[in-house]
Amino acid sequence: MASSVFFTHSHCYSSKPSSLVFRQVGVGPTSLRFSSSHVASVAAMAMDSSAKVIDGKSVAKQIRDEITAEVSRMRESIGVIPGLAVILVGDRKDSATYVRNKKKACESVGINSLEANLPEDSTEEEVLNYIAGYNDDPSVHGILVQLPLPSHMNEQNILNAVRIEKDVDGFHPLNIGRLAMRGREPLFVPCTPKGCIELLHRYNVSIKGKRAVVIGRSNIVGMPAALLLQREDATVSIVHSRTSNPEEIIRQADIIIAAVGQANMVRGSWIKPGAVIIDVGINPVEDPNSPRGYKLVGDVCYEEAIRIASAVTPVPGGVGPMTIAMLLQNTLISAKRVHHFE
Amino acid sequence: MASSVFFTHSHCYSSKPSSLVFRQVGVGPTSLRFSSSHVASVAAMAMDSSAKVIDGKSVAKQIRDEITAEVSRMRESIGVIPGLAVILVGDRKDSATYVRNKKKACESVGINSLEANLPEDSTEEEVLNYIAGYNDDPSVHGILVQLPLPSHMNEQNILNAVRIEKDVDGFHPLNIGRLAMRGREPLFVPCTPKGCIELLHRYNVSIKGKRAVVIGRSNIVGMPAALLLQREDATVSIVHSRTSNPEEIIRQADIIIAAVGQANMVRGSWIKPGAVIIDVGINPVEDPNSPRGYKLVGDVCYEEAIRIASAVTPVPGGVGPMTIAMLLQNTLISAKRVHHFE
Repeated sequence: MASSVFFTHSHCYSSKPSSLVFRQVGVGPTSLRFSSSHVASVAAMAMDSSAKVIDGKSVAKQIRDEITAEVSRMRESIGVIPGLAVILVGDRKDSATYVRNKKKACESVGINSLEANLPEDSTEEEVLNYIAGYNDDPSVHGILVQLPLPSHMNEQNILNAVRIEKDVDGFHPLNIGRLAMRGREPLFVPCTPKGCIELLHRYNVSIKGKRAVVIGRSNIVGMPAALLLQREDATVSIVHSRTSNPEEIIRQADIIIAAVGQANMVRGSWIKPGAVIIDVGINPVEDPNSPRGYKLVGDVCYEEAIRIASAVTPVPGGVGPMTIAMLLQNTLISAKRVHHFE
Repeated sequence: MASSVFFTHSHCYSSKPSSLVFRQVGVGPTSLRFSSSHVASVAAMAMDSSAKVIDGKSVAKQIRDEITAEVSRMRESIGVIPGLAVILVGDRKDSATYVRNKKKACESVGINSLEANLPEDSTEEEVLNYIAGYNDDPSVHGILVQLPLPSHMNEQNILNAVRIEKDVDGFHPLNIGRLAMRGREPLFVPCTPKGCIELLHRYNVSIKGKRAVVIGRSNIVGMPAALLLQREDATVSIVHSRTSNPEEIIRQADIIIAAVGQANMVRGSWIKPGAVIIDVGINPVEDPNSPRGYKLVGDVCYEEAIRIASAVTPVPGGVGPMTIAMLLQNTLISAKRVHHFE
């Protein structure tokens, strides 16, 4: 999700509502007219002048506590400990950090973590050998290949080699197909979109019959998020780079999931009063006040959104912590499934 | 698609525009305001007071002629004739008719057709045996199990048994997953939605950046149609039985694909002037003037749509003939792929 581009003018101008955007689409009064009926329709949301902050960090903590309890119950009942294997190829610093965080998260809930660190110049075959080993290892219930892989490797070949029963990322096309189809169940739901929906559930946001707009159509977030919302009977629209009037469509949404990787793209004037916003973007923007010289912001202009939405996830501390929690949950689900443990 | 329910009041009241519906959603003037800019944006559409009729019958004929030429070129070049096997279980009259039509269509383009007719009381194993035989038969490039199957059989088990390389229906979850994912290619695109998009292509309707609304989210039409439109860079919304304000959303569409199985559900007032309409519904409604006592109508009120849309498919003679043409095309694609014939 993270965009590597730094934006020079990325702050929100939160003191000036962007009236230009309003005029461009020419629906100012209409959109205001919608608002009053909508405010009544979003259930269980605080109607203060400022929105409820959806605290992903605290929800993720709660879910990790639940996982810890289940892992311990499983160990005590049948002597099985769920195991997650992570394959890291090369020396990318950010990838190494992600892998370390996943390892730490596993330890914190009692899941075994295995790690294969392969050098940058490994062959595709060597990576495939490791995957084959983990595929056959009954103590491994989930396999994760840290992306991106070095450019000389065929990512699709390598990902396809992971046994679907251990594909805790949920990115296998067979899994995505089942996610798309009514009456079928995926083995795993991809972690980030699953985390988005879980936040809605834990905050009692009703999804059925609501207008939902997903911004971005990536294979790892936007597309599966749209499929999940659809499974829960939302009326879903997907907005993307080719959409001619994104504001107009986004302004109709009761639920917005933004996963486009563009700092502060969604402005306050794009948001229907009372909407619930899940912001998946994690974008670095220049910040002279920060010792690092930059800070992280979402795809939604938080300062504006908080005034008009009924609930919104912060960045950081919103969706981010949920992704790892969902990875742990998928690993637990996998171990339970293979051992028929309920 | 066909609804088996007869509607007593299914005619369109085409002389009375449904002002009630307009008032209900309260956007009459707004929707008219949108129309002028839209009329300019729909390319290559006649702007007469009545819409262009999208002649599916004639397009399907043209495609079948193209297939005939390709089948003949293949036979002459490499001596291979594409083959389609159809499995029919039981004595349903409608199913028998569908199978007969598919067989005739195969013959008309030079594709070999094989047929297995099994009695109603066959076991699941017997059907699976036939599938296994066709899976292994190199002269068979496509396998089709006519639905519905007798109720004592597990449809999912049986459909899953068809080798994905011969799944010319394109309903295998792996295929649907590939259809949903950017950068992946399905082996086959499901026939009816493929036919819908083909009609848009052949009538030079531009899809990229357009608002598209799919009505209905079935695994066999609505959902894959939405995925296909999305692959072509439309901004897609899916409207379904849980959608609270279908008219409002449908009225924003430049392209409507209706696949809900409800006679004349979409009224003229739901349609944005200049929209292009693909009507997949085939619904029997009472008709005392017909010798059969009924006639077939679509999900869209044709008499009203023809006045406001820029192009619309009739029922029958629209999408219907395209479905079989796409089945023949998928069988040809399959034979070409296995023999590396281009």
